[in-house]
Amino acid sequence: MTLLDAVGPAEVLSRLPGVSVSFIGRRRGVVRGDTGHGAVIADLRIDDVDRLDVLLVPGGSGAGGTAVVSHEPTMRWIRHIDATSTWTTSVCTGSLILAYAGLLQGLRATTYWSAKDVLTAKGAIYVPGRWVRSGKYVTAAGVSAGIDMGLFLASLLADEVTAQACQLALEYDPEPPFDTGSPDKAGPELQRLALRLLEQSQR
Amino acid sequence: MTLLDAVGPAEVLSRLPGVSVSFIGRRRGVVRGDTGHGAVIADLRIDDVDRLDVLLVPGGSGAGGTAVVSHEPTMRWIRHIDATSTWTTSVCTGSLILAYAGLLQGLRATTYWSAKDVLTAKGAIYVPGRWVRSGKYVTAAGVSAGIDMGLFLASLLADEVTAQACQLALEYDPEPPFDTGSPDKAGPELQRLALRLLEQSQR
Repeated sequence: MTLLDAVGPAEVLSRLPGVSVSFIGRRRGVVRGDTGHGAVIADLRIDDVDRLDVLLVPGGSGAGGTAVVSHEPTMRWIRHIDATSTWTTSVCTGSLILAYAGLLQGLRATTYWSAKDVLTAKGAIYVPGRWVRSGKYVTAAGVSAGIDMGLFLASLLADEVTAQACQLALEYDPEPPFDTGSPDKAGPELQRLALRLLEQSQR
Repeated sequence: MTLLDAVGPAEVLSRLPGVSVSFIGRRRGVVRGDTGHGAVIADLRIDDVDRLDVLLVPGGSGAGGTAVVSHEPTMRWIRHIDATSTWTTSVCTGSLILAYAGLLQGLRATTYWSAKDVLTAKGAIYVPGRWVRSGKYVTAAGVSAGIDMGLFLASLLADEVTAQACQLALEYDPEPPFDTGSPDKAGPELQRLALRLLEQSQR
């Protein structure tokens, strides 16, 4: 997975009063990011967890996503948790995992900019946007969009004022040095270069 | 430490060709974030590392920063690495650690919005800004500002076009749901609430 997909929203949500955030893995222990540089700890494994108020599925580049969607116990667990979750959410290509699990059938959803055809092929209706809400399903665009979605979730889980304070707590007043953060703004040449960067940085 | 302080720029820089990113700790192994929810792995310990092109010191709320600045071997290591680094950088209150190490004396620098008096007291010249460069020292504002600074560093380490592609690779086209990400925009009441959120979420 892409570490920031999980850590961005986790950082937001773990500041909310009464909220407990856990990284959950197939096994407990080290989960290395998709670049191979850096890793997080899964404190719980899927077999330990029967119920969640919020399920958030991060994405990633490379073979990790394929490994998840072809691992039947994980897909079954996602469907099981979704059956009683208040919110089922994703960041980046995490929405493809939700779609493969059959949860986004006919629903408006978003994903990483280069993955929209896969999302559509799996039955969702692709909508561009930093995050897209369809009932209890909230999907975010690529990687950094998880922070925007996290703050939106914070306003749902707590209230708008608390979410605003949370945004200040993370000093989230972004000033990207360039205006190339979306495929439309970046253009085809930077799109090709971005995909090359992703490919060469996969471990 | 605050996980996002480290993971944000790590995610940016680990996409650059030829760049290797490592999380470095006092000891190898689990480094829990300052909320207690979630942890990263330190793959190297300071005693393993004699030289870095880029040193990035993350910040954090709570007692962690105090523990670092009073741990003489860590402070000595920071000064030692800085002596040969190309860039010495920080996110959030990480700049206080650089200032305690004596590295920001008389230099323009930034930090988390609520920590500027400490930075000034330790001899730096506080400048508001998402990131501030003084020669080889680049300091970022709070938490999420590490992503902005990471992209700026990417343009220095690689080139501007690669950094622009990197911004697209992370789909970093932020749309914060609120306009409360800086203390000026948020106002005094949200400032108090944000500090309360930080305090109650510290483990």
